[in-house]
Formats: sequence, C-alpha cells, structure tokens
Amino acid sequence: MHILIIGAAGMVGRKLTQALLAAGTIAGRDISALTLVDVVAADVPVSDTPISALAADLSLPGTAQTLAATRPDLIFHLAAIVSGEAEADFDKGYRINLDGTRLLLEAIRQEGMKAPYCPRLVFTSSIAVFGAPLPPAIPDDMAHTPLTSYGTQKAICELLLADYSRRGFVDGIGIRLPTVVVRPGKPNKAASGFFSGIIREPLNGMEAVLPVDDSVRHWFASPRSAIGFLLHAAGLDTAPLGQRRNLSMPGLSATIAEEIAALERFGGTKALRLIRREPDETIARIVAGWPQNFDTGRAIALGFRAETSFDDIVRAHIEDELGGQIGNG
Amino acid sequence: MHILIIGAAGMVGRKLTQALLAAGTIAGRDISALTLVDVVAADVPVSDTPISALAADLSLPGTAQTLAATRPDLIFHLAAIVSGEAEADFDKGYRINLDGTRLLLEAIRQEGMKAPYCPRLVFTSSIAVFGAPLPPAIPDDMAHTPLTSYGTQKAICELLLADYSRRGFVDGIGIRLPTVVVRPGKPNKAASGFFSGIIREPLNGMEAVLPVDDSVRHWFASPRSAIGFLLHAAGLDTAPLGQRRNLSMPGLSATIAEEIAALERFGGTKALRLIRREPDETIARIVAGWPQNFDTGRAIALGFRAETSFDDIVRAHIEDELGGQIGNG
Repeated sequence: MHILIIGAAGMVGRKLTQALLAAGTIAGRDISALTLVDVVAADVPVSDTPISALAADLSLPGTAQTLAATRPDLIFHLAAIVSGEAEADFDKGYRINLDGTRLLLEAIRQEGMKAPYCPRLVFTSSIAVFGAPLPPAIPDDMAHTPLTSYGTQKAICELLLADYSRRGFVDGIGIRLPTVVVRPGKPNKAASGFFSGIIREPLNGMEAVLPVDDSVRHWFASPRSAIGFLLHAAGLDTAPLGQRRNLSMPGLSATIAEEIAALERFGGTKALRLIRREPDETIARIVAGWPQNFDTGRAIALGFRAETSFDDIVRAHIEDELGGQIGNG
Repeated sequence: MHILIIGAAGMVGRKLTQALLAAGTIAGRDISALTLVDVVAADVPVSDTPISALAADLSLPGTAQTLAATRPDLIFHLAAIVSGEAEADFDKGYRINLDGTRLLLEAIRQEGMKAPYCPRLVFTSSIAVFGAPLPPAIPDDMAHTPLTSYGTQKAICELLLADYSRRGFVDGIGIRLPTVVVRPGKPNKAASGFFSGIIREPLNGMEAVLPVDDSVRHWFASPRSAIGFLLHAAGLDTAPLGQRRNLSMPGLSATIAEEIAALERFGGTKALRLIRREPDETIARIVAGWPQNFDTGRAIALGFRAETSFDDIVRAHIEDELGGQIGNG
C-alpha cells in the first residue's frame, strides 16, 4: 500500500509518519511506500520502507495532478493554513484551505477517468465549523455555523468531500479533531496555545500564562488520540457512514480547573505555582465562541476512542514526549 | 437605487422584474435603474425606469467584475444550473453554481477595495441543501446534508455568503425557497414538475400525470410568495440575523391528497378526472429523499410570509396566471 501524507511536516503529520512506520501495516495491508508532502520538505525518518519527501504547494497548478498520478492507495490530507492566518490573510486562507483541497479532489477524479481509481482520503476537518450560539452538546447533524474564514473553508471542504464520495470519485472521510493538547514543542501564538502551555511549561519547570478564567470549558484530545483517529479512519468500512462522511471525533469536555487539577496530580504544587493568571479579554472573547462539548455517539459506535480524563491526557504527554519522566522534579 | 438581477430571464427573474417595476420603489427608495443579466438576454419590459439587459455567463472571466464595476446598490443572484443538469454535468454544475457565485462575491470584495462598497445581495438557495434522513420539521440549524451536487453547491454558496458578510465585504442574505407551485408555462422534465402539473393542466382542460402516491408530503409556496420573499429580503434589516445569513423560507407542508382536494374545490370533478395516476418508481424514490416540512419560526419572526393552505396557492395561480378565470369551464 502506497500512502501519501499532505501536510507531513506539521506536528500531526510527523507523528502520523512515525506511527505508520512503526506499525508497518495499515488496515491489514503492508505499507510499501510513503510519500511526504508539505510546503517545506518533511524530515525523512530512517526506515526500510521507501520514503520520498516533496516540498510542494498543493494550491499551485500541477501539484495535485503530480501527486494523484502516483495513484496512492491511501491519502491523508492534513495541510492547512491555521485559523489566525486564514483570518488575517483572506486570499491565502481560501487559496490553501479551499482551492488546495478542491484541486486535490479534482485531480483524483481526473485520474479516475483515465483508469478506475478511488483512493481512501482521510481529511482533517475542525470543530471550527461550529460557532456560537451552540447547544450544550453539539451533534453531528448540527448546522455548520463557522465564525471564522478557516471554519468556513473546512466546512466547504467537508461538503466537497461528501459530494465527491457520493459520486464515487473518492472514498472520503472527514474527521473533526478536538483541540489537541498537550502539543509538544515551543509555545506558539495561537489563541488556543495556553491550553497546552499550562501543562507543558510547568512540567518543564517553566512559567505559563493563563489568559482565561478557570471555569472555561473546552474540548480536548491528546496527540496520541489524534493519530489514533487518523489510523482508524484509514481502515474504516465507510459503508455505515452513508452519505454523511464527516464526523466529530470523540474527546474530553473539561474545564481549565479540571486541567489544572490534573497538572497538580502529576507535577505537585511546584507545577501549579508556575501558572501565572493574566486575564486577556480578547482571548477570552475568542474562546467564548468555541465549542465546549460534543455528542460523538456516531464516532464512538464506529470505534473511534479518546481520553476520558485529563489525567489520561497528561499521562500521554509524559509518556510520549518526556520519556515517562517529569523534568522539573 | 440601481438594482442588478442575475438570472433575470427565468420564471422568478421575470416576475421579480415586473414586481419591481410595478412598485417603483424598494425598501423605501426609488428604483433608478435596473440591469437584467442572464445567459440569454432577458426581455426588456416597457417602462419609464432605465433598464439594460445583458447576455453574459457569470462563470466566465471578467463578467462578475464588469457587473460589480457598475456598483449596484442591490443585487439579486438567482442564476443556477438546475438540480438534474448539475447532477448530469458535474463540471458545469460546479462552474456555474459554485464558481459563478464565488466570482460574484470576489468581484464585490475587489470593488470594495477601490472605494467603500457593500451592496445588499439576495441569494436564492434551495431546500436541496437538506437530504434524508431528516427530522419531521427541519430547523434552520440542521446540518447541510445534500444528496445532490446541486444541493452541495448551494450549501457551499450559503457558507461563502455568510463569511463574506461576516467580513463586511457584502450584506448578504440567502433564502431557501420551497418548491414553487403552480409554475406557469409548459410542463418540464424536472422530477418535481408534477406538483405544478396536476393543478395547471387540469385547470386548463388538459390531462396531467401523477407519478407518486397521494400520501406524499412536500413543501410548497406560490410564485407570488417567492417574489414576496425576495422583495422582503431586499429591504430587511440584516442585523437580527447575526452571523446566520441563510434562512429557510416559510411554506406549506401538504400532501398530494390535500393538493388534489384544493384542485377539486376550484375545478370540480371535471378537473379531478384529468389527473392520470401513473406510478413511477424512479420519481417516487427521488421525491422520498426530499424535505417535507420545516420549522421556519426564524423567517416568520423576521416578517416573511407564505400561503397557509393549498386553496391560497391555487387561488394565487388563477389570479396571477389565468386572469381570475378557469379555462376549462
């Protein structure tokens, strides 16, 4: 099985690459080759599996055709301009997030006109397709109500994925990831960055800023769960999905207070004292428009699984990123 | 006020043109000029109001810019490839229904970059954005679940309209029309054609085929109501819409049996006998996937109004199309 990962250089893409190489198989079939694509060339891990890395912009003419022409059996499309940038640069957001995805779908369809071809396509959508006012737990049949251009672009891609799948041009599945915490690496400027920061930094002996109230509720899954969703989606029987090809992934609905309580259980009062409360009204207002809880019965019935406590999320971070050891002890 | 109608040559476009000219004003302002655009030049009615008619394809480069450059105050965008054709010709459907609308929105945005410009844009969406399985009455916050490429394209345009409005590039409102009956003119090949045919033909002394069971329920409004929706949307204060710019219009949920009972009240047993029952499994299957009823509380609160009985719909047809007289008597 030849696998193509678009957006391979990002955090999720790198972890997915490692997981695929570690498994050696997916959906019961051997992985024969891996193609890694991103706007910057992804690092190529040492492996017996043939891996090629390509620096390419999916939104430029020819890129999607070149990729589809290699007829991968399975495609992960993870590439996107993030929310803040898509809001700041309207043209770039639509070009990468909408046109890039449409060009990919269209290249797959054109390839299928030359000779039968209908690859599995796993697309990472986002809970940003939903915006306030929202019900207490958002069901899969809630309307797309994005409050950002990023969320609009993801919602449009969900519709395209469903239509191209219905027509038999691709075998698509779109998965809406919860906010992924604890993200490894350095703090970033994303409005959601503090959700990871207030665990990651204190466990590393560093201070972290908390810009919102402890009562704020949000929707979480670990990077480990995110990779689990992608692998499960790749092997899933899509027939039970019917025409509804996009799913909210399971996650944990938890408050900042619950998150901090988990931090204390692993890092003690020493870690706790490293959280500096610095209210930021702008961030608080943005976060207030975000989804807080989902009804993911459909995804759970299909076998998707996530953490059920913040302790599990912190433990996954310590095991996967810190070698099982907390660095501030 | 300069008004642009795109899709002016169709049934709704022609009736809208007549209604605007008859009123002379809209939203309390005089109509100073009317531009009628369609792929074929629309008929230009005799009027004191300056009217220009243009045959142009919105999906071709330059058309949208040319139209936006005239800076109309109010734009009605009614143009679309219908459901059956969009399903039969995948490329054409996406080109006209998606790309055409996106080019229009983009031309308006570009025009606004030269000098402030934010016209009201009334867009006709469709109940085809919803497909089975559906709840007994579809609320506005039901997910887009189209089962056709046409419905997918309309759903995507709704999302674009909302995002361009949120960003302040246009003042958009999307209205999902019920199935419009009784359509004047000749029978057509649309799967929904019989809903009009079984009223129109018998009242005209002609036979009409009924391909589905009398128990079939569907969602209706008269052409008169459709024009009323458009005019009301043109003058509506959009602030109460918030970020949710797309609305299901009010309509009448009725069965074929109720429709036939109304026919009998106006046309007698003579009209009744002109309905020939000829079950068609293909049409029955298509119709079974269509919405049957909506919760339109939101549109009603905003002042949109439709018929509340099939008698009202038949009466509107007799008054507006038959000069108040039934032709088979």
